[in-house]
Amino acid sequence: MHIVYKSDPVRGAHWQRWLAQHAPDIQLHIWPETGDATQVEVLIAWQPPEDVLATFPNLQALLSVGAGADQFDLSTLPPHLPVVRMIEPGLTQGMVEYVTFAVLGLHRDMPRYFQQQREQQWQTHKIHTAGERRVGVMGLGELGQAALKQLVSLGFNCAGWSRTPRDIDGVRCWHGSDQLNDFLAHSDILVCLLPLTDSTRGLLNAELFARLPSGAALVQVGRGPQLNDDHLLAALACGQLSAAVIDVTDPEPLPAGHPFWHHPAIWLTPHIASQTQTDSAVAALLDNLRRYQRGEPMVGVIDRNRGY
Amino acid sequence: MHIVYKSDPVRGAHWQRWLAQHAPDIQLHIWPETGDATQVEVLIAWQPPEDVLATFPNLQALLSVGAGADQFDLSTLPPHLPVVRMIEPGLTQGMVEYVTFAVLGLHRDMPRYFQQQREQQWQTHKIHTAGERRVGVMGLGELGQAALKQLVSLGFNCAGWSRTPRDIDGVRCWHGSDQLNDFLAHSDILVCLLPLTDSTRGLLNAELFARLPSGAALVQVGRGPQLNDDHLLAALACGQLSAAVIDVTDPEPLPAGHPFWHHPAIWLTPHIASQTQTDSAVAALLDNLRRYQRGEPMVGVIDRNRGY
Repeated sequence: MHIVYKSDPVRGAHWQRWLAQHAPDIQLHIWPETGDATQVEVLIAWQPPEDVLATFPNLQALLSVGAGADQFDLSTLPPHLPVVRMIEPGLTQGMVEYVTFAVLGLHRDMPRYFQQQREQQWQTHKIHTAGERRVGVMGLGELGQAALKQLVSLGFNCAGWSRTPRDIDGVRCWHGSDQLNDFLAHSDILVCLLPLTDSTRGLLNAELFARLPSGAALVQVGRGPQLNDDHLLAALACGQLSAAVIDVTDPEPLPAGHPFWHHPAIWLTPHIASQTQTDSAVAALLDNLRRYQRGEPMVGVIDRNRGY
Repeated sequence: MHIVYKSDPVRGAHWQRWLAQHAPDIQLHIWPETGDATQVEVLIAWQPPEDVLATFPNLQALLSVGAGADQFDLSTLPPHLPVVRMIEPGLTQGMVEYVTFAVLGLHRDMPRYFQQQREQQWQTHKIHTAGERRVGVMGLGELGQAALKQLVSLGFNCAGWSRTPRDIDGVRCWHGSDQLNDFLAHSDILVCLLPLTDSTRGLLNAELFARLPSGAALVQVGRGPQLNDDHLLAALACGQLSAAVIDVTDPEPLPAGHPFWHHPAIWLTPHIASQTQTDSAVAALLDNLRRYQRGEPMVGVIDRNRGY
């Protein structure tokens, strides 16, 4: 079988060597090298070439190298072509680490203590333990569920919200737009792990912030266009929100001079919450290629109607 | 039974009410009120009054309200008087939260990213997952073991070091001064949870830092006098250490102008890693008082020879 990889070439070379050893029947070409393009069945890419089916007329599946597929313009891709997100343990692990760090930092007032450090102020504040803190995670896919498992093990009072009903050990789950306000009212720390779709674009806005408990905090690890930057700044200014940890912005990189860079209550990181990990991802890729060869559905296929 | 409490009076009043309800045979006096001082059997305090046995001639035990008893001058206390540290789940939980936050922050390069934020620099660095990171915890008592359990569950490659041998699930344990260097060589992130004793005073010095892997990081949640501040600054300056999270200093509060306040690679917090939690601690106190009444050893009795 012939597949083409179109993304970071260093990782591509590593995957090529690994597959040659573990799956010699699969030949990985690193874009722009494609071999005989008519023989290519699978493309794994961050961005496909324009007019992907003209380039690869016999393409059977398009795989994303990342956790999301929102970078693809689904409207330009033929409806019958399966589009597949990357689900692999390294990516999940990175997100669990970042979310746990961010939630613990907000829970323990660290933005305030770091501001005190800058002001050379030695002042303690009452400590609340995790059981007193309600953490709400929006988006209960692979990443949201893994993050919640760790937060539950730390003793947080955890809730989750998703489009469709979910059942997660130790987590109070809400679903659908009807139950969103109830969920928000129980989220002292709100974690956004939603995919970017038409219904989540701009979702993190003044109306949503107003439904959170006063002084709540935000962890934004979804996608930049979900957040209304001006509304966040206003919510921080009036105290409705106390702090935010932001890993994704719109656009990326965030332009110089944007107010997030210097806001004392915002921790900003450059989209590093999680990255596809070379070693674990190629094993997940091979597993999906074998499913494809056996005629089974791959893991992470996008539902084109819901958009993720 | 009569006991005297000498510490924060708000917590004292809460404990008084709670004991009146749950253990009406125990009468808690809040210093300076002592009732008939000759009837007082137990004193629970952060600092005892001077000449404690002249004040309470029939005292049978001195209990600390905190995790350590190093604030007591043991040399002034009669050798037969049991001195007891506070071991209670709220204190443990707070330390687990803080250590997990600090280790994740150092693991994920957050001091560097926060410095980049101040410089409006959007730049990503390679992500290592927890399994690639060796975390070493010095001090394997109640707090050290609980912190390790959480770090193991996050996937870190964990090691521990203590004075005497320990056996902890999923943790490679070293002990004694002979094995200290081996332990240090395997600690990319070193967490100090040691009690303050004559052998740990000044332990975190240039000689110890030189035994760590180059670019290692430090989490100091033991006691201020264990750390040589100048040696830490020198190790950060030459790159032997990359960053430090410091919750305890000598003295406390840290004086204005001290270099820790403004160091870009130091996160400084005002001794807030953990605090005795009012509700859970009074239950632990009652448990110890019942042990005392039954003639059993209390939990947390200090070994006067080793000093903790």
